[in-house]
Amino acid sequence: MHDELRKAVCDANIQLWRERLVIFSWGNVSGIDRSSGVVAIKPSGVAYEALTPDKIVLLDPDGNIIEGPLKPSSDTPTHLELYRNFKSVGGICHTHSPNATMWAQACREIPCFGTTHADYYYGPVPVTEVMTKEQIESDYELNTGRVIVRRFAGLDPMEVPGVLVANHGPFAWGRDAAAAVESTMVLEQVAATALGTITINPEQGPISEALLDKHYLRKHGKNAYYGQRSPGEQ
Amino acid sequence: MHDELRKAVCDANIQLWRERLVIFSWGNVSGIDRSSGVVAIKPSGVAYEALTPDKIVLLDPDGNIIEGPLKPSSDTPTHLELYRNFKSVGGICHTHSPNATMWAQACREIPCFGTTHADYYYGPVPVTEVMTKEQIESDYELNTGRVIVRRFAGLDPMEVPGVLVANHGPFAWGRDAAAAVESTMVLEQVAATALGTITINPEQGPISEALLDKHYLRKHGKNAYYGQRSPGEQ
Amino acid sequence: MHDELRKAVCDANIQLWRERLVIFSWGNVSGIDRSSGVVAIKPSGVAYEALTPDKIVLLDPDGNIIEGPLKPSSDTPTHLELYRNFKSVGGICHTHSPNATMWAQACREIPCFGTTHADYYYGPVPVTEVMTKEQIESDYELNTGRVIVRRFAGLDPMEVPGVLVANHGPFAWGRDAAAAVESTMVLEQVAATALGTITINPEQGPISEALLDKHYLRKHGKNAYYGQRSPGEQ
Amino acid sequence: MHDELRKAVCDANIQLWRERLVIFSWGNVSGIDRSSGVVAIKPSGVAYEALTPDKIVLLDPDGNIIEGPLKPSSDTPTHLELYRNFKSVGGICHTHSPNATMWAQACREIPCFGTTHADYYYGPVPVTEVMTKEQIESDYELNTGRVIVRRFAGLDPMEVPGVLVANHGPFAWGRDAAAAVESTMVLEQVAATALGTITINPEQGPISEALLDKHYLRKHGKNAYYGQRSPGEQ
Repeated sequence: MHDELRKAVCDANIQLWRERLVIFSWGNVSGIDRSSGVVAIKPSGVAYEALTPDKIVLLDPDGNIIEGPLKPSSDTPTHLELYRNFKSVGGICHTHSPNATMWAQACREIPCFGTTHADYYYGPVPVTEVMTKEQIESDYELNTGRVIVRRFAGLDPMEVPGVLVANHGPFAWGRDAAAAVESTMVLEQVAATALGTITINPEQGPISEALLDKHYLRKHGKNAYYGQRSPGEQ
Repeated sequence: MHDELRKAVCDANIQLWRERLVIFSWGNVSGIDRSSGVVAIKPSGVAYEALTPDKIVLLDPDGNIIEGPLKPSSDTPTHLELYRNFKSVGGICHTHSPNATMWAQACREIPCFGTTHADYYYGPVPVTEVMTKEQIESDYELNTGRVIVRRFAGLDPMEVPGVLVANHGPFAWGRDAAAAVESTMVLEQVAATALGTITINPEQGPISEALLDKHYLRKHGKNAYYGQRSPGEQ
Repeated sequence: MHDELRKAVCDANIQLWRERLVIFSWGNVSGIDRSSGVVAIKPSGVAYEALTPDKIVLLDPDGNIIEGPLKPSSDTPTHLELYRNFKSVGGICHTHSPNATMWAQACREIPCFGTTHADYYYGPVPVTEVMTKEQIESDYELNTGRVIVRRFAGLDPMEVPGVLVANHGPFAWGRDAAAAVESTMVLEQVAATALGTITINPEQGPISEALLDKHYLRKHGKNAYYGQRSPGEQ
Repeated sequence: MHDELRKAVCDANIQLWRERLVIFSWGNVSGIDRSSGVVAIKPSGVAYEALTPDKIVLLDPDGNIIEGPLKPSSDTPTHLELYRNFKSVGGICHTHSPNATMWAQACREIPCFGTTHADYYYGPVPVTEVMTKEQIESDYELNTGRVIVRRFAGLDPMEVPGVLVANHGPFAWGRDAAAAVESTMVLEQVAATALGTITINPEQGPISEALLDKHYLRKHGKNAYYGQRSPGEQ
């Protein structure tokens, strides 16, 4: 049941580790089957080397475990809150990748300093508010999802496929689990490059709206012409 | 037809990925056969792992696809503009390699801080002007080539084999596709080292003309004595 | 005799090298068998590639070599002093890993800037006092242990499983040799991320007590719910 | 003839490349046989992958090629000048390793910020004067050796086994070719760590004389007790 989803989520988790975006068990990827509402997610605290599709935890739309002896990632309530609110998202990835975490810990959004960023994120990578004592002390992981959702008021999560949780690290997403890992890898490189940019020129501002539009829209949307698609093909 | 050129361009693209100068499909190398004017370039959005010589796109001197089903890199008009204007260039490479991109995003040229730089770049690595809304909104990739060409007024592109496009990243080149990758690798290391240099000493100025001449000219030109060449041999 | 301990200590030393936390012979891991008081430690100046369990040095509770021709690490008196004072510690690791060493050399504690840190270290990573001429000139390695112990007055070494020795580098520990390496790897990543954080935002302060409690206690102690443990299970 | 020396020098050059201290042909290691005065050195501009002992160039004490068709490294006159003046040196290594080059380009000596440094370099890593136009324009490589030698007035090159040539990069050395590579690797790590240290604490001063003495002398000289040597054994 949901074998394909489990395999895709397992592969995406292992890729995180292969790309050295995580050490130990510091990250988790999930995917959702929108037709049934079933979510597949990494089990908590299990090493990537030991991960196989049968260890991936399946959850029903209410977050209950469908089968298997393993507990899901402790960040599961964050993932579920994002799936409930970001209807076009099919996969979510959370890491503590070093460069994105530097910005998250500094509680600073990443300005769009260049076309690498603009190719994937249609504007700055936002940072959430700092969570309050109340938000932390009860339903912490659910509230983490809520502060992300609140930060995205007025933003399209498919145009800005990731966020920095203040004092914590990145969550990123996409149309499926593999795309969520891709958004994470891009964010990590964008974060590293932006840090160098402000070191060289602390006064550097973001690129122009025209350049942001050009790069984002040549890869995304109905007039995209990057890659092997025909115009209009997504 | 043009099998050697296709193989050389394919190998150069794969080397970019092996040297970890690119992730995903973030870069492209081309080469030109000056006798026929035919340009070979990476197809758009194709993964390096999947690249084979038969997938390399061949273009006639007017930029039309000669054969094959794949679309060329979306940056093709930039490459063609450079080939039209830089007559001694035989290969061009574009990446978003992190350290060079930091400087490009900071809109700062890289001063010649040392002999590593002077061995390959005869002066600072220039940065283009920031492109205007008009340059971006129509013929963007062609205009990217034009701002590079304009920046090289008074410069010999074989003496300064690369540039930083402001808000974007590096283009570098050489006598063929492999040399273009070499210019890119050097630029990446020079950019990293220069960032460290200004962190240690923000007031550091460039090396003397005498040292720049010494290092550049011991490797290049008619009196070169580096390597296994005889003096006068290029 | 003590074959398991020797193998565990050998494996932990080799892991240090595989994870690139050490070059040459710049690090050492030890483990203790609390029932007998026997300590196993890396021999001094031996390359990791050449390390086998039979080369691990066994010491009795007074620090005398039990058997074998090799001398123990020159840092042995530091390890022994820590075992004498930190009764719940079962393994200790010393390295000159670059990022932790940067902070140690800067004589600065690492503030708890984020949840990655809070998951493993329940507060800032402390730095010792600078050692005096007298402490250095006689019984240097023993006195290194003493300044660490003094710095931990009022701290639980199992809650803060590592320290920066000023002008020197990190010592980290855990319930056994493998856990000591884990504490070292975490410290190295925490140090790297913290450096980026203060570069982006020099005014950044530590996370709230509530967030520190939440993350540390969801992984440690009687109400932990991270991983595959049941609540109350350690 | 001199087969062992040739093999040792070849191995040391290849190690430079394996340790990623060089790319392309950006570095060279030499060794000397003090009984005959014969120097073995890397050929100029030859790739490390292609290096074999028979390609290593042998030079007589006057710097003339003894046999073989290849030209020696263009930096040979620097090596020879150092061998003439530093009588206890048996191997020399030159690279453009990134972190050491950052300091060389910044024209700053590396203060002794910690015990990692003190274990190998008995004081700051010195930087040469900036070379004059006259020194550059004739006998440049020989003059590079001369500014190094001048900088070492009052210093023992076996206690400070390396230097930063201003605007250029490091030269390091030791009792043989392998030791010269070791001095280079240490210098690269020391340079990286020192850069982090001044970023965290720009006011950080060097360690005390007592700590410098302790660490340097526990590894070097007649009272050394690090490693598997007996006291008095070198």
